Amino acid sequence: MFIKYKLDKILLMKLETHVAHFTSPLYLESGRILEPYKIAYETYGEINDDASNVILICHALSGSAHAAGKYENETKAGWWDDLIGDGKAIDTTKYFVVSTNVLGSCFGSTSPMDNDYPKQRPFRLKFPVLTIKDMIKAQKQLLSQLGIHHLYAIVGGSMGGMQALQFAVDYPNFADKIISLAATYATQPWTMGFNKVAMEAIRRDPRFDNGNYEKGAFEEEGLDGLAIGRIAGHISYLSPDSMNDKFGRNYVSNDGLFELFGRYEVERYMEYNTNNFSRIFDPLSYLYIVKAINTYNLSRGYDSLYDAISRIKADITLISFKGDYLFFPKEMEHIHQMLQRNQQKSAHYEIDSNYGHDAFLVQIEKFDTIIKDKLEKN
Amino acid sequence: MFIKYKLDKILLMKLETHVAHFTSPLYLESGRILEPYKIAYETYGEINDDASNVILICHALSGSAHAAGKYENETKAGWWDDLIGDGKAIDTTKYFVVSTNVLGSCFGSTSPMDNDYPKQRPFRLKFPVLTIKDMIKAQKQLLSQLGIHHLYAIVGGSMGGMQALQFAVDYPNFADKIISLAATYATQPWTMGFNKVAMEAIRRDPRFDNGNYEKGAFEEEGLDGLAIGRIAGHISYLSPDSMNDKFGRNYVSNDGLFELFGRYEVERYMEYNTNNFSRIFDPLSYLYIVKAINTYNLSRGYDSLYDAISRIKADITLISFKGDYLFFPKEMEHIHQMLQRNQQKSAHYEIDSNYGHDAFLVQIEKFDTIIKDKLEKN
Repeated sequence: MFIKYKLDKILLMKLETHVAHFTSPLYLESGRILEPYKIAYETYGEINDDASNVILICHALSGSAHAAGKYENETKAGWWDDLIGDGKAIDTTKYFVVSTNVLGSCFGSTSPMDNDYPKQRPFRLKFPVLTIKDMIKAQKQLLSQLGIHHLYAIVGGSMGGMQALQFAVDYPNFADKIISLAATYATQPWTMGFNKVAMEAIRRDPRFDNGNYEKGAFEEEGLDGLAIGRIAGHISYLSPDSMNDKFGRNYVSNDGLFELFGRYEVERYMEYNTNNFSRIFDPLSYLYIVKAINTYNLSRGYDSLYDAISRIKADITLISFKGDYLFFPKEMEHIHQMLQRNQQKSAHYEIDSNYGHDAFLVQIEKFDTIIKDKLEKN
Repeated sequence: MFIKYKLDKILLMKLETHVAHFTSPLYLESGRILEPYKIAYETYGEINDDASNVILICHALSGSAHAAGKYENETKAGWWDDLIGDGKAIDTTKYFVVSTNVLGSCFGSTSPMDNDYPKQRPFRLKFPVLTIKDMIKAQKQLLSQLGIHHLYAIVGGSMGGMQALQFAVDYPNFADKIISLAATYATQPWTMGFNKVAMEAIRRDPRFDNGNYEKGAFEEEGLDGLAIGRIAGHISYLSPDSMNDKFGRNYVSNDGLFELFGRYEVERYMEYNTNNFSRIFDPLSYLYIVKAINTYNLSRGYDSLYDAISRIKADITLISFKGDYLFFPKEMEHIHQMLQRNQQKSAHYEIDSNYGHDAFLVQIEKFDTIIKDKLEKN
């Protein structure tokens, strides 16, 4: 069997990110066309004979295809390694897991710094605006190329949770189970406000130069605009309570109080994390992905949100976090109520956590059994 | 009577901001000295014969001494005009209201762009770090110069509410009544996070030039860093609910969806307000005031918060707002509980509002009767 052979070959290799190339056009929601394009992905576990054990993992804004395991010489494992692996909730002895890098991201899939065809110059700000619908369409093409035409489950958090839900609405027969964490039915203005800080900070940074910077320009000294935007992001990923627990009012050193730029611990955390991030992440990719988050709205293309949601055939699991200050539990409850009204299969678990939005990444122990159970029961 | 004469003379003049100059040193909490210094202020109403009807108004981060009334040719009244005036809650037919501009602000009081003495060059980043304690010490000097040695009440919101509480702790016999709105006992890391966006965005803006810009440099084209920081501020002044009500997911124009910088209404609001602000407000003043907010902590200088609060002799009224995402009602409740434990006079009103932090500025009708009653009863 061709598919099986090809995948086995992949699995024989050491853990690495693969890149699939597509020469057929991808018709985007904007009406524009991306051609050719590529999608980076990783796989964990083995596909079974009838390809009925495939789970797709969708990542958040700054994520990558590297969801689990460690590359050779890597000290830190993939971003959801506590959830995905042998014997873990997403058990790679049972399931064949595919994790892709979203279109637009700088971690291997086609992004604004890739060359336009046929010009062979980076797209930069001429890259087409992407939406969550476009991202999942590209993922579907990748799965198709791998010979996978149906999924057992799709699991994702934050922007990954948006993708999971968008899959459920746009392709109702494609996946049996959808598990969406820390997401919403449509991005609200509160979240757009945080994104606006990043968009303006990047756009107005002279070194961003209207997108005309050279590849690798920020590897040594990150773009300030991206670092500043990321500070706003970090506020929204945490919560008042988690910040109190993590930092309190502690100073880094005794000069915190009477030096203008003397630092509290919370300030040091923001600086450290965002300065590093601005050396790694491409600012154009950040702009395009943030835009995709802003435009996310399950009801677009349908008569109403209810109309969109009533299309869903999959078993839906929604997991929200009490202390999430970016996508609030009531937004997930809104989806759940609509599904319930229509007697569709759904459950909403509001996890008791004060950690904030990032709980979906760091408090795996609070929800991994829910995911394990949902995947194991029929 | 000298005082009365002097104040009457002020009152005969048209509404305007006065500036009081001080040649005696102001000993700051940092150990540094400010000498000379000046405080801008306005007054409304008339002082009575025994000077027992004086109310001090304290403003927030971006406020000024101009709390009420309209200057000649002014279209918009002072920032708390709905609260302060003839027949209003803070009734200027009964009370003599003094409103000062805080030290460090660019609206008339000594600030980083004023000249250092004796060098006669702007302080810029050599301006001493100021604290809320320093601000109220300067206000007390001003009142002294006006011949006012006791206050009937102090009323302030946000950073103004911090000043009101700091007065109550540092000078227990100075005011009979303290009314603090939308404030806290100590600034928490969540709020410092928002302030960090502004501090970094200003500091890293090349036109800020480490504070060495010329006076008026940003009058035509505002400093991007300040505008960006202010976007983060605006998020914290509103709330998820108020943003939904105000903006929803509406676009400014049809290009919102598929243009990278196409705008949602929430984005237009952020741009418009912050670009204007960055032409008016001095970035050095912003840095110093934000630092004063970060260092605000009622317990500093005392053994504990309880020790600080137990010093209070005034009748304390705390007004918080359910939808305040900057200073949460539970922080005010914490103060109230401490006062109650010690049988001190206090009341905490948690106003049912989804507007967010800015409710203290824009939803006057939700709390003006509380203030009126507190001022009128004995």
